[in-house]
Amino acid sequence: MARRSITQLGENESINEVYVASSKQLRPNRQGNLYLQMQLSDKSGAVNAMMWNANEGIYKRFEDGDYIRIQGTSQFYNGAMQVIVSHIEKVDARDVDESDFMQVSPQRMDDMLKELAEHLRAIRNIHLRNLAECFLIDEALIARFRKSPAAVKNHHAYEGGLLEHVVNLIKVGKAIVPFYPQVDEDLLVMGILFHDMGKVDELSTDKGLAYSDEGQLIGHLVSGVSIVDRLTKEAEKLADEPFPEELALRIKHMVVSHHGKLEYGSPKVPMTAEALALHYIDSLDAHMHGFDKLLADDVNTDSRWTTYSPQFGRKLYKGGGEA
Amino acid sequence: MARRSITQLGENESINEVYVASSKQLRPNRQGNLYLQMQLSDKSGAVNAMMWNANEGIYKRFEDGDYIRIQGTSQFYNGAMQVIVSHIEKVDARDVDESDFMQVSPQRMDDMLKELAEHLRAIRNIHLRNLAECFLIDEALIARFRKSPAAVKNHHAYEGGLLEHVVNLIKVGKAIVPFYPQVDEDLLVMGILFHDMGKVDELSTDKGLAYSDEGQLIGHLVSGVSIVDRLTKEAEKLADEPFPEELALRIKHMVVSHHGKLEYGSPKVPMTAEALALHYIDSLDAHMHGFDKLLADDVNTDSRWTTYSPQFGRKLYKGGGEA
Amino acid sequence: MARRSITQLGENESINEVYVASSKQLRPNRQGNLYLQMQLSDKSGAVNAMMWNANEGIYKRFEDGDYIRIQGTSQFYNGAMQVIVSHIEKVDARDVDESDFMQVSPQRMDDMLKELAEHLRAIRNIHLRNLAECFLIDEALIARFRKSPAAVKNHHAYEGGLLEHVVNLIKVGKAIVPFYPQVDEDLLVMGILFHDMGKVDELSTDKGLAYSDEGQLIGHLVSGVSIVDRLTKEAEKLADEPFPEELALRIKHMVVSHHGKLEYGSPKVPMTAEALALHYIDSLDAHMHGFDKLLADDVNTDSRWTTYSPQFGRKLYKGGGEA
Amino acid sequence: MARRSITQLGENESINEVYVASSKQLRPNRQGNLYLQMQLSDKSGAVNAMMWNANEGIYKRFEDGDYIRIQGTSQFYNGAMQVIVSHIEKVDARDVDESDFMQVSPQRMDDMLKELAEHLRAIRNIHLRNLAECFLIDEALIARFRKSPAAVKNHHAYEGGLLEHVVNLIKVGKAIVPFYPQVDEDLLVMGILFHDMGKVDELSTDKGLAYSDEGQLIGHLVSGVSIVDRLTKEAEKLADEPFPEELALRIKHMVVSHHGKLEYGSPKVPMTAEALALHYIDSLDAHMHGFDKLLADDVNTDSRWTTYSPQFGRKLYKGGGEA
Amino acid sequence: MARRSITQLGENESINEVYVASSKQLRPNRQGNLYLQMQLSDKSGAVNAMMWNANEGIYKRFEDGDYIRIQGTSQFYNGAMQVIVSHIEKVDARDVDESDFMQVSPQRMDDMLKELAEHLRAIRNIHLRNLAECFLIDEALIARFRKSPAAVKNHHAYEGGLLEHVVNLIKVGKAIVPFYPQVDEDLLVMGILFHDMGKVDELSTDKGLAYSDEGQLIGHLVSGVSIVDRLTKEAEKLADEPFPEELALRIKHMVVSHHGKLEYGSPKVPMTAEALALHYIDSLDAHMHGFDKLLADDVNTDSRWTTYSPQFGRKLYKGGGEA
Amino acid sequence: MARRSITQLGENESINEVYVASSKQLRPNRQGNLYLQMQLSDKSGAVNAMMWNANEGIYKRFEDGDYIRIQGTSQFYNGAMQVIVSHIEKVDARDVDESDFMQVSPQRMDDMLKELAEHLRAIRNIHLRNLAECFLIDEALIARFRKSPAAVKNHHAYEGGLLEHVVNLIKVGKAIVPFYPQVDEDLLVMGILFHDMGKVDELSTDKGLAYSDEGQLIGHLVSGVSIVDRLTKEAEKLADEPFPEELALRIKHMVVSHHGKLEYGSPKVPMTAEALALHYIDSLDAHMHGFDKLLADDVNTDSRWTTYSPQFGRKLYKGGGEA
Repeated sequence: MARRSITQLGENESINEVYVASSKQLRPNRQGNLYLQMQLSDKSGAVNAMMWNANEGIYKRFEDGDYIRIQGTSQFYNGAMQVIVSHIEKVDARDVDESDFMQVSPQRMDDMLKELAEHLRAIRNIHLRNLAECFLIDEALIARFRKSPAAVKNHHAYEGGLLEHVVNLIKVGKAIVPFYPQVDEDLLVMGILFHDMGKVDELSTDKGLAYSDEGQLIGHLVSGVSIVDRLTKEAEKLADEPFPEELALRIKHMVVSHHGKLEYGSPKVPMTAEALALHYIDSLDAHMHGFDKLLADDVNTDSRWTTYSPQFGRKLYKGGGEA
Repeated sequence: MARRSITQLGENESINEVYVASSKQLRPNRQGNLYLQMQLSDKSGAVNAMMWNANEGIYKRFEDGDYIRIQGTSQFYNGAMQVIVSHIEKVDARDVDESDFMQVSPQRMDDMLKELAEHLRAIRNIHLRNLAECFLIDEALIARFRKSPAAVKNHHAYEGGLLEHVVNLIKVGKAIVPFYPQVDEDLLVMGILFHDMGKVDELSTDKGLAYSDEGQLIGHLVSGVSIVDRLTKEAEKLADEPFPEELALRIKHMVVSHHGKLEYGSPKVPMTAEALALHYIDSLDAHMHGFDKLLADDVNTDSRWTTYSPQFGRKLYKGGGEA
Repeated sequence: MARRSITQLGENESINEVYVASSKQLRPNRQGNLYLQMQLSDKSGAVNAMMWNANEGIYKRFEDGDYIRIQGTSQFYNGAMQVIVSHIEKVDARDVDESDFMQVSPQRMDDMLKELAEHLRAIRNIHLRNLAECFLIDEALIARFRKSPAAVKNHHAYEGGLLEHVVNLIKVGKAIVPFYPQVDEDLLVMGILFHDMGKVDELSTDKGLAYSDEGQLIGHLVSGVSIVDRLTKEAEKLADEPFPEELALRIKHMVVSHHGKLEYGSPKVPMTAEALALHYIDSLDAHMHGFDKLLADDVNTDSRWTTYSPQFGRKLYKGGGEA
Repeated sequence: MARRSITQLGENESINEVYVASSKQLRPNRQGNLYLQMQLSDKSGAVNAMMWNANEGIYKRFEDGDYIRIQGTSQFYNGAMQVIVSHIEKVDARDVDESDFMQVSPQRMDDMLKELAEHLRAIRNIHLRNLAECFLIDEALIARFRKSPAAVKNHHAYEGGLLEHVVNLIKVGKAIVPFYPQVDEDLLVMGILFHDMGKVDELSTDKGLAYSDEGQLIGHLVSGVSIVDRLTKEAEKLADEPFPEELALRIKHMVVSHHGKLEYGSPKVPMTAEALALHYIDSLDAHMHGFDKLLADDVNTDSRWTTYSPQFGRKLYKGGGEA
Repeated sequence: MARRSITQLGENESINEVYVASSKQLRPNRQGNLYLQMQLSDKSGAVNAMMWNANEGIYKRFEDGDYIRIQGTSQFYNGAMQVIVSHIEKVDARDVDESDFMQVSPQRMDDMLKELAEHLRAIRNIHLRNLAECFLIDEALIARFRKSPAAVKNHHAYEGGLLEHVVNLIKVGKAIVPFYPQVDEDLLVMGILFHDMGKVDELSTDKGLAYSDEGQLIGHLVSGVSIVDRLTKEAEKLADEPFPEELALRIKHMVVSHHGKLEYGSPKVPMTAEALALHYIDSLDAHMHGFDKLLADDVNTDSRWTTYSPQFGRKLYKGGGEA
Repeated sequence: MARRSITQLGENESINEVYVASSKQLRPNRQGNLYLQMQLSDKSGAVNAMMWNANEGIYKRFEDGDYIRIQGTSQFYNGAMQVIVSHIEKVDARDVDESDFMQVSPQRMDDMLKELAEHLRAIRNIHLRNLAECFLIDEALIARFRKSPAAVKNHHAYEGGLLEHVVNLIKVGKAIVPFYPQVDEDLLVMGILFHDMGKVDELSTDKGLAYSDEGQLIGHLVSGVSIVDRLTKEAEKLADEPFPEELALRIKHMVVSHHGKLEYGSPKVPMTAEALALHYIDSLDAHMHGFDKLLADDVNTDSRWTTYSPQFGRKLYKGGGEA
């Protein structure tokens, strides 16, 4: 039988399907009875779910990030769908088709990685191309890079999200470079590649999407510098010559400065043409995708405004359809 | 005899040439003698000049913005050139070749205007194309637009600077639109056209570069909205139908919000996809050209860092030459 | 039978009365049953209401801003009254006495408008008096001005509120002018008249009190300038002579700068004596009325402190009764 | 012979007159020769003065705040007058007519004090009137109050300035009270009286205008509370009954909160109607007088803008003369 | 029978015990039925409690700060314990052993006071030692000082907390003084003693822990200065000589500046060596104890992070156990 | 002949001595003649110097950081000493006794290093002690660490300054640990050791004191993490076992967070007990030494206030001598 995906659920529908659980909580209602609240998701989206009359035993039956089969009923109120769950059981990861739960399919990830590799191998500067090669042959790093989201929420918040963000940003970067001759395209591409690379350490997708201890205590800007340090050492071995200090410095500067301001967590502000360009196109891309996501998640289909967005700190305007 | 332009001046050279005067000041030295200090400029650049033993009479012989013929000597110290003036006389504007004093030549301005017109006439939305046409046929506005700089300093601070900024931004905008399908290209182009249009009222190039009273009391964001209001009324006459309110609203929103934050003088923050895109590419363009200008003006040719930039609030890194 | 106004409702009273509905929401309770929550108001005040076991059909029976007849019971808990609704039906506006629902009576509005006209016709400067006349004969604008509140909440948040705020501010302005001879009374009066005039576009009272799209995307400061622009053109026709640019500039400057700081949404800070005076007395008036409203709405009658006020960002002190 | 006051000085005039010296500095010129720079003032204004070829001996001949007789010549340059001094000698205070050096004459001070006393004796609340009486009979405090300026610069920066500020503010306060019935006029008057009273400890006029150690380490808000504490104890003795705690609290709250925000040095923000009113009218008065002073000091008589004002953080607009 | 303290409560336990009530609220549930919510505490900690089907009568049976005997059942959910109350009755304070409800025992308070007295009597400066003596013999002040917490929450938020904070800070201060010879130990000890002394007026423990009117309107920094003023007058009587102004000024400066920044409520920033030292060690101590308290209150025993802390504005890291 | 140190120079003294030059600048005077301005320093202090009638040739005779022998005369004006130079010649570093130019003598550096080693070898945790050992045996790092100042100005701005700061901070840290049992002393010592270690890369003392390119583009917080990364790898080799990740994370967190706030350049705020303690004692130490230095440099010996300090953003109070 065909899988019933979350965005297909209609009102008052009987459900017997496997989803990924996250954000589970055991809570009492006003009468002091416990109920279980959680989020169910697959690649199509996410929905809140409640199981009345739950207990500690049910609560411990699975962890955030596990696949679970639930039985229950969909319910519509206040403009949003929710699921009332009557039965829960954990499902082994080997028994599911993981592509049902990933927003970016393995095929699409392969395609994007290939596109990324093409961009990297087109770099003209020999030192930077060697460095890029060291990245491309580091299978462990690539594997974590593939799994990494670009953020916990707001934009690209899914497996493959970081890859998608980097590839898109390289294309934007190459599109604007012709208008700014002072920007070195090779350096800009390398800066884009590494600017969020520390997120492979910062964000964990294994148990739902969350910050790792390292992510919270050190942050992805500093972790990213460590990765660049390690890869430049690899590049020196590969090329059997020192990696130019100036280039390493410029790449690391792009990584630490790309948030643009101290109060946004960059210990240094952008001070090179490439770091300035990276900061502005990264902001552009993050906000454009944030807007996209806000529209995609928006249930207020008949309002001219989105719901309030914490990323933007405001509602955004969708407008009417005329003109 | 060929004109001696400012950047050609060598050390200890005798000078007898016409320049534009600005920032003139009559000041006493430590001994209580008055001297005249001013800036001399032509299209190649600007230089400080001093006339010892000046007086009120000499001071009143010309105004900022006038052409003056000076006789004197160039002098080099502390890494910068200055001119010691022995004689000053005002020159009639009809007796000079104005192209010697403009960074953007009339020919190049004509070319850019033509390029702008092509972009505007390629707009698909009929209402927006009509509005653009009303701009293109408004000769008085075009004339002021041509003369307008994009800023008093930092970037595009010369006649034709605003035109250059707008044309470049349209090209950048069109380059990034393919990657952000939620952005309406026509609207973005219109927003770019009008975002700084109020500067035709805000900045005056007649007497050196300065803010007009209107510029200081109202600001170019609000003046820009007035211009859009006026042109939409023209567009309604031209098309003999109402201009869609939603479109007018979205253009005016781009104008008022393009500084991105309240504390930067925008009374509203960007709330549409086009307003967000405009804000980020305008910031990118302004900072890229600001960097360019900083490098062009930089006299510290052997330092790896520029001088301190008030626009950026810091020095920027030029680096060495290797790699 | 005499109308039962909201502030007259006692505990456990049976209610069968017409109110204005706003802020309606359909929400599920813990058991997943839907209930309807809304606000009921008349000129005396507002109260929260709940209808248990509601559904989409009931939810769509009326819109925010409609008159509805409700049947139900009042209930007191946690220091506040609420209404439990058993039956709802929409009522035609023609079947109600609108004066029951307006905080400012039509008679009082007429009186205030008359008082305003007297102030405006006492202006000595001929140009400004002409401009004021153009306002007074613009019936469409006056009609919207009458309906306009001065704010969505905090102070003067009701039909006629803007009129009340303007008339009071003119009186305060005239009272302080004798102590500040550098302030031009005529200009100050005109600035007061127009400072919030853009709210006729920004705020809509038709469907409950809310910001219009124009209000959110452009803001009342910029809309106010457009109104001044339009009226000065009318004044030029009326007087058959140009309206002095300096005066127009000073009025528009007062409008755009009256919030006092960039971060409060003014694109320019006050730079004339009248703009400074307007900013401070407008702040005074808004905070004094905000305090009044806080006291009027306060249900904590036995506490020496008001509830937390979002306008002030703090609780205010009511104190005891002695002395 | 009639005294030659500072604002009467013309260009190239021989001077032999007594002024108050302040801001004296011994500085070297470019050639390493020492010169003395100082400010000379009388009640009409102030002027910079320079004595070439000075030395330590001359420097120590007088202190800031002393009367000195100078011989020299006036000189005009760069829009401003200065005095070149050839001879300096200290003058005994008993040998000058102090009224030549005070902006507020003793007669006018007596008049203002009388006016203040009338306002204070018109207070209706018996406790507050007693407290005011304790102030009026405290001769030592009154003497320091008379001498106290309201600020070191910007507004009311002269002997009698605080008195003038308080009297004007009481008049403004009484003018606006009719429009804000929640404000207790008696309390407001008392708050105005004491809000800057700590300046009698904070500012010293004895040796030119400067902050005392106490002013810098404790500040006039806290010193003001100490004065209120002391006077309420006097009032209790006078009335032989306790001073109501609530009233004392409200007055002290006005004193500590009148700067309006923590970052402006108020340890508490205004939380009563009177404290709010005091904050806004005090801001109004300080800025109106600051504008006045800026205009009075302005030497750019033909500019439409004042010089940059540190108090306002900007230039202010004077405008043209028409309309 | 042994008392059942709050931290001893297990799941589903029957309870019949006396606690202190605070934060009581009467609230409706979704069905419109009223329930009572409150906090129960003893010296071991605090727990939330709910009484279903409550009413105004029960609500008024006791006040915050009263001792109440409750009957009910403990319940565990969502990681936290709560108590469902079936019966409440007020208990007379004379019938309880107050030591069951105090985090700091009377014995320990006596010990700490003795330790404080030893520190104070070891002061070498005769004036400061006299001042300290005046504090030690002021029984009314000592009594309030003993009862005073150091804060409403976050750190030392219990009777005796201020005493504990002061004694600990004196020990820290004495430990660091050897490394900073410019710091006068006697002055630092006096500054520590008085820096939060105003909290005896600001915080009230009589009815649960809350800010007094004086605390909110004047604040403990200003109240502290009043106490120092009063005690220096006592010291002058005791010693029969004037208390040195410089010393009084330095102590009061420490009191008003110890928050370190204007925006944290200090009307002056630290400007002496002792004030700087006090600011930093006070911050250290407050944050170290805040961290301690966060760990002590933490119910997430198996998480590597604490819950979100409003004092810190973030979660803190507890980490794992290894190493 | 005994060396004439800078603080020994009296007025109008003939000088023929060797100093270190820095901040040299070639500038024109008002008459357009060039003069050379520079700073001369030895271990006792620094003084400004001027050479009239200089030229490019003299300017290029030496670099900042070189030893130069100058002949000239001391001069006193405006409260400060300066040197008028008549002759300059560069001196070879081998011909001077470097101890005349170092504020911290080689002997004292050896002593401090020995003291540091003792502290490090007293660490109880085996992993941390190994890591410390790797630092102690890294001769290249130790050599740079010895030369490193702790800041460019304000505090410890001299060779050996970082070492002095670290040793003092360890003593302070150990002094306060007994009062905060939640702080792990071993970790705190390691955090102190490494918190500013990146300054060995950030600051360069070779040519006067200045920021290196790496210092400006990456910053010492991120460079410090790289050093910790490298040393932990060394420690793993030394111990032949993995270095506990948790410990490495905690040390690196201390390094990146020790500035305490994002806006002060820390990409993460302190989230562990040791990081919090480090932040506060580091702030304490930096400000105490900054105060010391301000007093040491202060030439206003008869003023009760220091000169304005950019580090503190204010003047500090020295006070009088009594009490």
